[in-house]
Amino acid sequence: MKIGILGTGMVGQTLGAKLAERGHEVMIGTRDVADTLARMEPNQYGMPPFSAWHAEHPSVRLGTFAEAAQHGETIINATNGTGSINALSIAGETNLSGKILIDASNPLDFSRGMPPTLAVCNTDSIGEQLQRAFPAVKVVKALNTVTAFLMVDPALVNNGDHTLFICGNDGAARTQVNTWLGEWFGWRDVIDLGDITSARGTEMYLPIWLRLWGALGTGMFNVKIVK
Amino acid sequence: MKIGILGTGMVGQTLGAKLAERGHEVMIGTRDVADTLARMEPNQYGMPPFSAWHAEHPSVRLGTFAEAAQHGETIINATNGTGSINALSIAGETNLSGKILIDASNPLDFSRGMPPTLAVCNTDSIGEQLQRAFPAVKVVKALNTVTAFLMVDPALVNNGDHTLFICGNDGAARTQVNTWLGEWFGWRDVIDLGDITSARGTEMYLPIWLRLWGALGTGMFNVKIVK
Repeated sequence: MKIGILGTGMVGQTLGAKLAERGHEVMIGTRDVADTLARMEPNQYGMPPFSAWHAEHPSVRLGTFAEAAQHGETIINATNGTGSINALSIAGETNLSGKILIDASNPLDFSRGMPPTLAVCNTDSIGEQLQRAFPAVKVVKALNTVTAFLMVDPALVNNGDHTLFICGNDGAARTQVNTWLGEWFGWRDVIDLGDITSARGTEMYLPIWLRLWGALGTGMFNVKIVK
Repeated sequence: MKIGILGTGMVGQTLGAKLAERGHEVMIGTRDVADTLARMEPNQYGMPPFSAWHAEHPSVRLGTFAEAAQHGETIINATNGTGSINALSIAGETNLSGKILIDASNPLDFSRGMPPTLAVCNTDSIGEQLQRAFPAVKVVKALNTVTAFLMVDPALVNNGDHTLFICGNDGAARTQVNTWLGEWFGWRDVIDLGDITSARGTEMYLPIWLRLWGALGTGMFNVKIVK
C-alpha cells in the first residue's frame, strides 16, 4: 500500500522503516525537503540527522507534506501535536480528504520545562482538533501511548501481550486501522474506545507515561488492561 | 491502628468496611453527622443511604471531619476531589499535622455533563493542592486509579496481578503506605512515582479510565505495567 507519513522525527522514521520493510511504498513528508536533508548535526535529543537515517533506508522516499499526503492512500501523522494542524494545512485538504489519517501525535509542550505539560487537554484534544479542521478526513487516534520502538514491534515487551487504544468517529476506519495494526506491527490487544473525543483520554495518559518512564528508567514499557 | 476516613461515599464505605474487618479502629468523618444519618433515600448513583450501610458495619464509628481526623493516626481522604480542600480545612490542620494522609480523591467535575472533566489538571492536581494547603501533612496519593472494590481487593481481577501508583513528597511516608497497601488489601505491584507532582499523572489517567469503563462495560479492570 502507498503510505504517507507526516514528520521526519523518531516516530516518522521508525514507522517508515518498518512499513517499508513490510513492502509498503512509503513517503515521508517534511516542511522543507532541502532543509531536512541539509541538517548534519544530531538533533536536540541526540538523534543522528535525517540524512544519515535516509541513507540507510533508501526505499523510503522523502517529499513535502503535500507530496507525502498526495502519495499516501493512507496517512500517518507523526508530527508534534502542537504543530499538527499546521502540518496538515500545508499537506493540503484535497490531498487528505476521504483518507484514513492515523494520528500518533501528542500535544506535548516543552516550553515550560520538564516534564512537559499538554498544550491542549481536558475539554479538547489534538485528535478532535484535527477532525474538526479536516471533517472529510477519517481521523483515527492510535499509537500515541507507546514509545516509537514499541509502536512497530510490541513483541519487544511481555511477548507482545499489552494494550493499544484506538478511537475515531468513523467505525469502519477504526476497524480497518485495528486490522492494520495487527498486520503491520503485530498488535493483538487493541481496545476500541469509540469516537474521537476519547483522544482526550489517550493524550491525557501521557503525563503518567512520562512519570513511569522516569520511575522505571526506560520507555520500553506499556499497560496491559486486565479484567 | 486508628484510622480516620474523610468521606461517607462508596470509597469511604468500602475502605472503612475492609479496614474494620482487618481489625483496625475506623472512624468515618462527615460534614454533618445528623444530616448523614437522617438521609433515607438512595443517593444519585442508587447507593443505599449511609445509615443502611452503617447498620451493617456497627464497628465503624461515624463522626465529624474533625473527630475522624483527631481519631486517626493515619487519615484517608475519600471525599470528592473538588471538595477536599474544604473537607480538610473543616477537619482542622492541628488534627492532621504530622500524619500521613492517603489521598484517594479525583478532581471529577460533573457540572459540564458526562463524561466528567477534571476540575484541575496539567499544571496542578488535587494532591499538590492538599500538600500546599497543609504542608505539615504527609500527603501520599494512592488508590485513585481503581474502582472502590478493587482498592480493597485487587485479587478480584487477574489474581491481583496489576499495578497501583503512589507518589508524595515524603519518601518514608511513601514506603509506609506501600507496606500498608500490601498488608491491608493485598497489593503486590505498587510503583513509586516520586514526589507529589506525579499526582497530575495519576489524576489525568481518569479520562482514559472512564472511556475504558464505557468500552469494557465494567469498572472492574485495571492496568498492569509490563516491561
